[in-house]
Formats: sequence, C-alpha cells, structure tokens
Amino acid sequence: MRILLTIEYNGKRYEGWQSQPSGNTVQQTVEKAVFALTGEEVDLVASGRTDAGVHAEGQKAHFDTNASIPAEKFYKALNPLLPDDIKIIFSQKVSDDFHARYGAKRKTYVYSVYVSDVERPLKEDFAVRLDKYLDEGKMQAAMTEFVGKHDFKCCLSSGSQVKNTQREIYYFNLIKTADGYKFEVCGNGFLYNMVRIMVGTVIKAGEGKIAAEDIKNALLSGDRNALGKTMPAKGLCLKNVEYPDEL
Amino acid sequence: MRILLTIEYNGKRYEGWQSQPSGNTVQQTVEKAVFALTGEEVDLVASGRTDAGVHAEGQKAHFDTNASIPAEKFYKALNPLLPDDIKIIFSQKVSDDFHARYGAKRKTYVYSVYVSDVERPLKEDFAVRLDKYLDEGKMQAAMTEFVGKHDFKCCLSSGSQVKNTQREIYYFNLIKTADGYKFEVCGNGFLYNMVRIMVGTVIKAGEGKIAAEDIKNALLSGDRNALGKTMPAKGLCLKNVEYPDEL
Repeated sequence: MRILLTIEYNGKRYEGWQSQPSGNTVQQTVEKAVFALTGEEVDLVASGRTDAGVHAEGQKAHFDTNASIPAEKFYKALNPLLPDDIKIIFSQKVSDDFHARYGAKRKTYVYSVYVSDVERPLKEDFAVRLDKYLDEGKMQAAMTEFVGKHDFKCCLSSGSQVKNTQREIYYFNLIKTADGYKFEVCGNGFLYNMVRIMVGTVIKAGEGKIAAEDIKNALLSGDRNALGKTMPAKGLCLKNVEYPDEL
Repeated sequence: MRILLTIEYNGKRYEGWQSQPSGNTVQQTVEKAVFALTGEEVDLVASGRTDAGVHAEGQKAHFDTNASIPAEKFYKALNPLLPDDIKIIFSQKVSDDFHARYGAKRKTYVYSVYVSDVERPLKEDFAVRLDKYLDEGKMQAAMTEFVGKHDFKCCLSSGSQVKNTQREIYYFNLIKTADGYKFEVCGNGFLYNMVRIMVGTVIKAGEGKIAAEDIKNALLSGDRNALGKTMPAKGLCLKNVEYPDEL
C-alpha cells in the first residue's frame, strides 16, 4: 500500500530534504526510520525539496510498503525511531497512483522576521532579525505585484535548471506580529529559492529601496538582479501542502 | 560604576543561571564575556537564579566595573563575545546601591504548553506537550486560589532550605493560544520550583483531578503532596523583572 506522511521538522541540523552523500538529510533520516520499523528500503517522495536550514510544519511525502501496520498507526510507530527534530504528525493510506509531488496543488510557506537592535536567542532559530520596522503600505503594494499567474524567471536562483518558470500565487499576506512580521504565501508551486527572493524583495520595498512598479517590470523582463536579496533559510517554514482533488 | 544588564537566553544547553564547577552556566558565560571585554573578574548578581533548562527573555543582573565604556553601549560590546543562545538586550547605569536581587519588586514568568498527540519539533524547545485540551473554567478557578498573599510552603521543592515562604501573587492569567495555553504569573518573588509546581497543579485541576478547594487547603496546610507535579523546566521563561522604585 501507499502511505502519505505529514512531517514536521526543525531544519537547523540538516542539509535540507533531499538525499545527499553525507546522509544528513530529512529524507534519509525518515527512510532509515522506515527501514528500522519495516525492514524495507523505501523511496520517500516529498511534495518538494526544502533547502538546508528550512523548516517544515506540514511537509508531505509518500512511500510504498508491504508492512502490516495499519496506515493510520504508522506515524506513532515511526516517531520513537526518529530524532527530536523530525516527527511524523499524521499518516494515511492513499491510492496507488497518488503522488506527493505531482499531485500537490497548493503549497503554503511562512517567512518570519523580527525587529530588534540585537539578535534574540529565543527567536533566532525560526526568524531573521531586521534593524527596524518597515513601511507596511509599500510592502503590501509589493506583495500584490507577485499575486496571480506570472513567469517567475526573475525569482529563480541562478543555479537552477528548471524549464517552466510559470507559477501562480494565490495569496501573499503580511501578518504583523508583536515584534515583527510574518509573510504568508500560497501558490501552486515555487521555484528554487523563490519564496526567499520574494520576501527579500518585499523587505527591500518596505525599506523604500524598490517600488512596486520595479517588481512588475522585473516579472516581465525576468531580471533576477532587479529584485532584493535571497533571505536566509532559517526564517522559512513549509506550512502546508494540499491535494484538494485527491484527499 | 554599577551596570544593570537585561539578558535573554535559551536555557537548553545550560545548567541554569548560577555558577557551577562545570562552568556551564549563564552567569559564568556572561562573566567570561565581561572579562574578555574589560579584563575585570566581576560578580554578576541576578534578580534570582533560574534552573537548568529554564529560559529568560528579561533576566536582570548587575555588576561593577571601572571600564570606560558608556553603560548604555555595554550590551553591544558584550554581544559579539557571547554565544548565540545568550545575548544582552539592554544595559544601563544604576546607582551604586542598586541591587538586582534585593531591589526586585515584581517578576513575571510565562509557562507554555501545547496540545498534540505527538511531540512537535517546532515547539518542543520552548513548550511542553499535553495529550488533550483541558477544562478552562476549572483551571481559572484553580489559578484564582494562588492569587494574593499566601504562605507558599506547599509550593516549595523538597530540597529547598528557604525560611520565609510568604509570597504575594499579583496575577495568574490563562492565555489560550492557537494550539495550547500560556500561564502568565506575576508576583513579588517565587520559591524554588514554585511556578512549575503551580502550573502542574493548574493542569491537574484542568484534568479534573484536583479542585480549587483542595488548593486552598494545601496553601493552609503546606502539604506539597496535595498539589500537582513539578512541570519540566523547558516550558518556563522568566519574562520580566521590575524595579518600580528605582528605575
């Protein structure tokens, strides 16, 4: 049977989701736990890879097993075999043609920043420090430019070799917190580093260093250099992956 | 001159505030940073010790120095000499008879719990997991019993040798969060483990296993065994220490 896992992890100690020669990835850690439980060497297929240092509250990944453990009990059996910073929070049986990556219709990411003149030990693991508060009106205007169907070539990290750079952003929300901001973005898919580049650009807009019009032009021209910097990984969290047609 | 520091720390890696032979305490780590900066072996006097694993967002501590660095610039000079999990968030000159411990008039602690059937990697460092939601009315009733002036002998950890166990609690608030509770308590001082025992008792009340009346009686009898368990350190954070007469 095919089982779909919902996985929460603190990405700090890992070289991202996808298997690496070092073995220090989320994928390999979960695959090892499945092997310890079932004796099977499974291929765990995620909704998408997360980079080194990125967190997830709701990563989804499927695998096939012949184990006799009921699907809905798999997560409780796996958790004692996993480290404290990776846990399976839900498991369910899916059809044999379900695919965690190809079937994913909506993904939601949250990027967190806080404002302080010094680094704050209680925030640093999951958020990035800003020196000062930003212009919220200008950020909102910048965020609006990204919403909708666009060619996101300008938000593509230079190393990437993906061919189709067309994506749709359903919403991009600014949430004011007690001491900073959360940027919540939902779309049908994201290019490598796309969220971190979008957030870096919105922050640059909030600093008054790039206008909404410049973002509109960058989306048309595909010029990565017209946008803001790629924000650090640790502020990013994959919140949720949805399969509305199948689950 | 005497300088007062406001210190934030993630207590996970430390054996609490107070100096130990191991050297692995918050006090010793900050004292070493002061030595590296000024060449002075100072005695850092905190508002009170925090136990191993307890966090602080606003611990206060004073020390005397002959350094020529202006008091209000001390924190920025110290921070590069401190590890990521301890930072000074503010520094100020205080009078030579100011005392961080004896002068402290109000302390506020927050204890965090979340509800889930599995441990959640993104919450585990700063909160404790509960299996299910609790009866909020019963918790509120229990919390009310602790408010006011009482002999808190029943909330005294068995190892403690303190003589005066009279304390006053100004407020004890239940805050509902997206997936759990925060317990915020403010008082003129707290005995060793007192907050963790109070929260353990309130949770026991929320489970319907102890009534508000039992707490009233325990406060009168001083019977530690009549109350709930001592909650784990990692859910506790010293939020703030106030010196209303002096600062």
